[in-house]
Amino acid sequence: MAESPRAAKTREAIIQAAAGVFEQHGYNGARLSMITSRSGLTMGAIYFHFTSKDDLARAVMAAQADDLVLPDGERGLQRLIDITLYLASELQRNVLLRAGVRLAIEQGSFGVRDSTPYLQWVDRFRDELGAAEAVGDLLPEVVVADVAQLLVSSYSGTQLLSEIATDRADLPERIVRMWTYLLPGIATPEARTRLRLEPSVADRADDADRGNDQPGR
Amino acid sequence: MAESPRAAKTREAIIQAAAGVFEQHGYNGARLSMITSRSGLTMGAIYFHFTSKDDLARAVMAAQADDLVLPDGERGLQRLIDITLYLASELQRNVLLRAGVRLAIEQGSFGVRDSTPYLQWVDRFRDELGAAEAVGDLLPEVVVADVAQLLVSSYSGTQLLSEIATDRADLPERIVRMWTYLLPGIATPEARTRLRLEPSVADRADDADRGNDQPGR
Repeated sequence: MAESPRAAKTREAIIQAAAGVFEQHGYNGARLSMITSRSGLTMGAIYFHFTSKDDLARAVMAAQADDLVLPDGERGLQRLIDITLYLASELQRNVLLRAGVRLAIEQGSFGVRDSTPYLQWVDRFRDELGAAEAVGDLLPEVVVADVAQLLVSSYSGTQLLSEIATDRADLPERIVRMWTYLLPGIATPEARTRLRLEPSVADRADDADRGNDQPGR
Repeated sequence: MAESPRAAKTREAIIQAAAGVFEQHGYNGARLSMITSRSGLTMGAIYFHFTSKDDLARAVMAAQADDLVLPDGERGLQRLIDITLYLASELQRNVLLRAGVRLAIEQGSFGVRDSTPYLQWVDRFRDELGAAEAVGDLLPEVVVADVAQLLVSSYSGTQLLSEIATDRADLPERIVRMWTYLLPGIATPEARTRLRLEPSVADRADDADRGNDQPGR
């Protein structure tokens, strides 16, 4: 169904307001009335665009990357590292990403089993790994699809433990450590001497992008 | 408070019945009445031992390893690998473990932030890594406490993605791949030539243990 620009704008406003509610209260604590009072939108508008709270939660999961401005640069391992560190700092403050990740982790609690939010990242990571493979930065025994799955898995678990332990305050350092121990099994020794693992790089890139709200990718 | 043997037995029966309900319905879908009808225990007995559903969920999380019989053998990397592969097969069928892990993952959905269930595994993994370090199996730059955290993180995320994608059918292979890519950053080349990464080893050990229900550790 093609949407009018106005309908698309309303739909996005609903998703943004819902993200704020889901991020704070989780799926089970969220009420549609919290979304209307936060956004000034009507219950009718919500039900015009979404069939249920479940449907809205899936939309927030799927839109988790929409507010991101992923780091630029040549495709490959360095860019993949920079993306993971950028995500670590966004997970500390980007409401849409935090809500989407929270819902993806807790989806079992509301009876959903949707791997799309993870597979989006698997695809994105696989692209960068494919570029790294093409320039000879990966060890010959590496299977790109497997490493993409492993990285998204490790990332998901790392952010989960960091969230529970420190409310994600230590997530950037944990991601640096993840790479420190994973790179010897993935990248050539030559590539490893070139790669930078600095959480501050992602933070600087991110600060420069503030005020720029175009969608990521 | 010291418990009588009978009270301890009742408490364990409640936890086992609750695990079955939480594993199937999650925290939010679980009702205490499901636990009484499953166990033949009374609501009074549940409230004698636990103050609330929340309290009971924490107890199931904490008891997640109680039905396990972890692989024997010399302490160190091989044993750690065997434990992770054993856990992968138990996660396919052990109700108490499945319930405890489900609750630990979804705990945000019911307002709990309890890192104890993860830290139990971090401690266990650190013990084996410490033994590996003592016999010179780890690379000199390895920080045992960091690798223990990383392994539990990667494991948690891997089981989460495997659960969503295949109901954990592919978890053993995913754990083998996790080790394949992580070992070069952790273990010496000499140690790596000795280590076996075979999901079937854990399965065989596990089959031999069937019928033996003594608590793990």
